[in-house]
Amino acid sequence: MSVINVGIIGFGTVGVGTFEVLTKNREIITNRVGMDVIVKKIADLDIKTDRGVEVHHSLFTKDAMDVIDDPDIDIIVELIGGTTKAKEYILKAIERGKNVVTANKALLAECGKEIFEAAERYGSGLAFEASVGAGIPIIGALKGGLSANRIQTILGILNGTSNFILTKMAKEGLFYSQAVQDAVNLGFAEDPPTLDVDGTDAAHKLAVLLSINFGTTAPFEDIYREGIDSLTPDDIRFARELGYSVKLLAIARMLDDRIEARVHPAMIPKNHILANVNSEYNAIYIDGDFVGPNLYYGLGAGKSSTGSAVVADIMNMSRQIRVGLKGSAPPLGHIHPPDKEIMIQPMEELITSYYLKVTALDRPGVLSMISGILGENHIGISSVIQKGRQINGSVPIVMLTHEARESDVQKAVLLLNNLDILTGKTVTIRVEE
Amino acid sequence: MSVINVGIIGFGTVGVGTFEVLTKNREIITNRVGMDVIVKKIADLDIKTDRGVEVHHSLFTKDAMDVIDDPDIDIIVELIGGTTKAKEYILKAIERGKNVVTANKALLAECGKEIFEAAERYGSGLAFEASVGAGIPIIGALKGGLSANRIQTILGILNGTSNFILTKMAKEGLFYSQAVQDAVNLGFAEDPPTLDVDGTDAAHKLAVLLSINFGTTAPFEDIYREGIDSLTPDDIRFARELGYSVKLLAIARMLDDRIEARVHPAMIPKNHILANVNSEYNAIYIDGDFVGPNLYYGLGAGKSSTGSAVVADIMNMSRQIRVGLKGSAPPLGHIHPPDKEIMIQPMEELITSYYLKVTALDRPGVLSMISGILGENHIGISSVIQKGRQINGSVPIVMLTHEARESDVQKAVLLLNNLDILTGKTVTIRVEE
Repeated sequence: MSVINVGIIGFGTVGVGTFEVLTKNREIITNRVGMDVIVKKIADLDIKTDRGVEVHHSLFTKDAMDVIDDPDIDIIVELIGGTTKAKEYILKAIERGKNVVTANKALLAECGKEIFEAAERYGSGLAFEASVGAGIPIIGALKGGLSANRIQTILGILNGTSNFILTKMAKEGLFYSQAVQDAVNLGFAEDPPTLDVDGTDAAHKLAVLLSINFGTTAPFEDIYREGIDSLTPDDIRFARELGYSVKLLAIARMLDDRIEARVHPAMIPKNHILANVNSEYNAIYIDGDFVGPNLYYGLGAGKSSTGSAVVADIMNMSRQIRVGLKGSAPPLGHIHPPDKEIMIQPMEELITSYYLKVTALDRPGVLSMISGILGENHIGISSVIQKGRQINGSVPIVMLTHEARESDVQKAVLLLNNLDILTGKTVTIRVEE
Repeated sequence: MSVINVGIIGFGTVGVGTFEVLTKNREIITNRVGMDVIVKKIADLDIKTDRGVEVHHSLFTKDAMDVIDDPDIDIIVELIGGTTKAKEYILKAIERGKNVVTANKALLAECGKEIFEAAERYGSGLAFEASVGAGIPIIGALKGGLSANRIQTILGILNGTSNFILTKMAKEGLFYSQAVQDAVNLGFAEDPPTLDVDGTDAAHKLAVLLSINFGTTAPFEDIYREGIDSLTPDDIRFARELGYSVKLLAIARMLDDRIEARVHPAMIPKNHILANVNSEYNAIYIDGDFVGPNLYYGLGAGKSSTGSAVVADIMNMSRQIRVGLKGSAPPLGHIHPPDKEIMIQPMEELITSYYLKVTALDRPGVLSMISGILGENHIGISSVIQKGRQINGSVPIVMLTHEARESDVQKAVLLLNNLDILTGKTVTIRVEE
């Protein structure tokens, strides 16, 4: 039996996870793939720290080029992350005709065009199942089982850290900063968890999903991003009273000649299957024209779940190598990619319904003044909660609007915030039905 | 550009759905596959009935062998169902070296060994994504994105008809027979829906999933089956009061040297993601040693969802044909299948906890008599609800047990049912935590 040699660049959490999957499940991997898949070299700047796994010292090198230039290595696994060194190494591996596996969503979202084109030019395989939803095989589903569909909607809970924080806030009534602290203490968040909570990480992942769906790179910089740091337990409680859960959603909707692509906190009905995705779990809800609504759910991060996806890619490539193919399918899965680019609708043109919380002095005529401003800006109200509990003479007025235009809502909020009867900033949360 | 010719045998609901996907999404299919995929022949005994789709009459034949023997046809799609004619046609197509796509779970579960071996012998491709969960790409996930894992647990809601009926019973308090009638009227069930509600259909699908997981056919006849027809709205309500939902579950658990494989009504905690899978939706919950808990959710039946999966298989085969491969992977995805067979644990050895509802005369000492019988049979009680509402002097006594052995529970139930203080049959529902 012949052997597939794998080289790992970056031996952090995911690198160790990948190594553990390959070693602990070696027998089933061999049976399924038909070849023995072994790690031949591991590159990391730190080759001293004990990672709790047994690795023969001869596998280690400090120089990633030792891995890339090893003629016996068939598959290079890039797990250092970031968009500088990782990009350089991946491009070098591709140029040498190596198959490449990566979990690097930032790189694929921000420099995808260059990477994908290089892979096609050199006929190198490039796989990245682990880049979205870790072990959830969503990229495989889009390229495979769902590929007969025109995807109409993607709703993703794509960042486990922010979902953990929101779940804590919802279940325990914690403030954002307290929930972040809990997440940091439990190892679910970096300190500070900026890219997780500001929507950047989820937007990276949404860009990767869109690229697969359309067969061409998505313009990452045009994806609207808004984080969860200004949400309060009050808003989450009011949302629940109105029948909704609050999630950080990555949303794509295919319109006629362009798409919506945005990441922000959103309210979804409590009985929606996505509303039941809690804690560190991720889920991707996809509606296709024939398949209908589908959901994919699992742990969206972590050593083992991410390692599971990295090794699935390695196995898939090994199967191809076994039958004599390499890079037979382009990385985005379209043999004839489209000529036109993905056009993302400017955020101000979004039409959706909104949750608005206005905090105002408890005086006669306040509600009429507020609804007047909304009305002048073409925003209709579908329900109102005015809570009795005055705090220093102020009351929160919570409203759900009918469908309205984002630019109108932003304008109305500016006008509201300038009223001297307002005692706090107006909160808006978009609603996804 | 060259062309992939497809032949469809069986032009019922799923056949029409498959044709619709191929024609309506022809452009995206061509772009993704790199070849034009067209339907060249359709065989059905009835070639007169208008199915609401435009098909040129020259495509039709009454003789399936016209399709199988057409040298231009690359992929044969079997959609007639059943285990007689379908088997004959599939084997003939395989013998002629054709690629075969089928949605036929009954055939794969009951005659899989013969079919899979023939496909390997003749090097024919054989794909069956549509056989489990219709458009949910669960087979692709097991063969692909999850394939680095040792799967430990499968919990499936695999029959949409019975899930629709149970949801109706739970949400509207209907009796079983009323809910069945609603399902029939709405087109979610055949009349009578025997194989759907007695667990056979779900067991067929579980057998297919187990075959993929282990790389060898599962012994379908050893899968325990119990239907939903004896459930009452009372039991569903009591379950809810105890914090559970009742679902028809297909369950597989991998033990050391054998597995549990069973289909029966089961109680699952209300906050389990599976408990939120309602109406005609299906879902498969899979726990793998590295990936952790995963869920796959979608419409598990119907023209379009099933057509989506059939066409995904056609596309995948077309991609292989384009690069010159055919039948390169065995149908169960294991290059080296195991020598040993799948051993299913006898049902009487199952250890789990149970819901018991005993209906007895409301007399002093009854509870002690019942708990005495349970205790003598090594069954411990973890909670009891005794409801005040007497009906003709009887009260239901609802209990949750600690983990107990199935054979002990069956023995205790027999003893209980022989007590003359009992006024109704004892109901048992197994609990999945």
